[in-house]
Amino acid sequence: MLDIHFHYTGRRSTLLLSALKGRTMNVLIVYAHPEPKSLNGSLKDFAVTRLENAGHAVKVSDLYAMKWKASLDASDSMDGQASERFDPALDSKLAFENGRQTRDIAEEQDKLRWADAVILQFPLWWFSMPAILKGWVERVYAYGFAYGVGEHSDKHWGDRYGEGTLAGKRAMLMVTTGGWESHYAARGINGPIDDLLFPIQHGILYYPGFDVLPPFVIYRTGKVDEARFAKALDALGQRLDALWTAKPIAYRRQNAGAYDIPELTLRADMAPGQAGFGVHIE
Amino acid sequence: MLDIHFHYTGRRSTLLLSALKGRTMNVLIVYAHPEPKSLNGSLKDFAVTRLENAGHAVKVSDLYAMKWKASLDASDSMDGQASERFDPALDSKLAFENGRQTRDIAEEQDKLRWADAVILQFPLWWFSMPAILKGWVERVYAYGFAYGVGEHSDKHWGDRYGEGTLAGKRAMLMVTTGGWESHYAARGINGPIDDLLFPIQHGILYYPGFDVLPPFVIYRTGKVDEARFAKALDALGQRLDALWTAKPIAYRRQNAGAYDIPELTLRADMAPGQAGFGVHIE
Repeated sequence: MLDIHFHYTGRRSTLLLSALKGRTMNVLIVYAHPEPKSLNGSLKDFAVTRLENAGHAVKVSDLYAMKWKASLDASDSMDGQASERFDPALDSKLAFENGRQTRDIAEEQDKLRWADAVILQFPLWWFSMPAILKGWVERVYAYGFAYGVGEHSDKHWGDRYGEGTLAGKRAMLMVTTGGWESHYAARGINGPIDDLLFPIQHGILYYPGFDVLPPFVIYRTGKVDEARFAKALDALGQRLDALWTAKPIAYRRQNAGAYDIPELTLRADMAPGQAGFGVHIE
Repeated sequence: MLDIHFHYTGRRSTLLLSALKGRTMNVLIVYAHPEPKSLNGSLKDFAVTRLENAGHAVKVSDLYAMKWKASLDASDSMDGQASERFDPALDSKLAFENGRQTRDIAEEQDKLRWADAVILQFPLWWFSMPAILKGWVERVYAYGFAYGVGEHSDKHWGDRYGEGTLAGKRAMLMVTTGGWESHYAARGINGPIDDLLFPIQHGILYYPGFDVLPPFVIYRTGKVDEARFAKALDALGQRLDALWTAKPIAYRRQNAGAYDIPELTLRADMAPGQAGFGVHIE
């Protein structure tokens, strides 16, 4: 599998070599917390400093500070609604193809193109990302940019889940939550953290091509004293240092033979008898 | 288990009897699609008519039409930020307790109190609800209203997951998606639909007390012709007719003995050896 990956995402090996040689890499942090003086604000500042001190270039999309427009609608095209009936996918496609997306959307897409690695940082609110960040995904992930990309046939169901515009780049979640780690354990009442994050890590990051690193999660944020904060920074620092070398989650590639197309169900001989999110990891 | 339920949610039996006697029930539809002339718009109109024709009272929170503010921030309190540092939970608590929430939030809470059943209706965007609806949850689900409710001790970890402000009410998701049903099957590439919806059904609806009915899902929305549309309306009509009698998903109650407190992990003798979202259903 390594050979296939090496062959396919040529860019990844370049990226790794560059990082090991100490070359400057580009990191985009998409940050969604309303309070700069929060734990999240501190973690974000620490991350920027750590990455910059290692010689990398960092951009931060601070969604609250930018007053990011959260709701996708017809005004996301400079032409307004394309026809009598607003169609989220079709209107997005037209605006993207014709260079008529609003400037805030186009700028975020440029940052994604520029980045070698992307970090989505947010507090877990109601077991998912805050609305403002979800709205960033919905508006920036245009048709033709993040979906509706590539050949669509009985052998290749679009460039997605391992291929796509953002292939060769790395992504990681930085998440905080008030609940205890045990509440998010395999049998914890909230559900396992990896399963709660699957729709984001697999459905939002892996879908347009990112290699997804395991998430960095801080639990029980209401009880972060100086000692725990120092520990958290230490752990985060190590994760940031390993951004180019850590092993991504081994999600299965959609078009590489593991799935029947067009059903897109996992072939019967792969993880036989199993079901659920877990079967999509090799 | 039926007996315990009967004993606990006394209101449910009243509700059931009332419905069977043909009494008027109150239904709130929280609807999140930007285009009235969409499939979602048609389904919403159909649902309103069907419920009203059955004698029920219906309110619709049409989030796009209301220009619902999606992003939670300090301006959600009429007093603005409570202290030098905005704290999403603490500021929400103060505004709720002191009657200083903005009017849009308080009105939605009133609608929730009024409702016997709540339907969240939305297109599945990036494997979750649209940002505008997520922002409705974040802002309307105030501290003291939807969380931070009830005794918090070593025996009772707050009124949640089966108890809470909205106990005795029913909730159901109405979801549309462009993908095929097989893509959302047990081994489908997107992940099983029930697992994708778990953070919403269990984490957002069951958490503050709702009894959650199985979701109503329409797949492959790009290929809905007249025949499929008629079929969908027929199926939806039956689900709406059964809103008071259908069996809710049997999520386990947090404070009824199935979970160790405060770890909130499922007791070792319940669903032994199993893990994941599924263990939280009896």
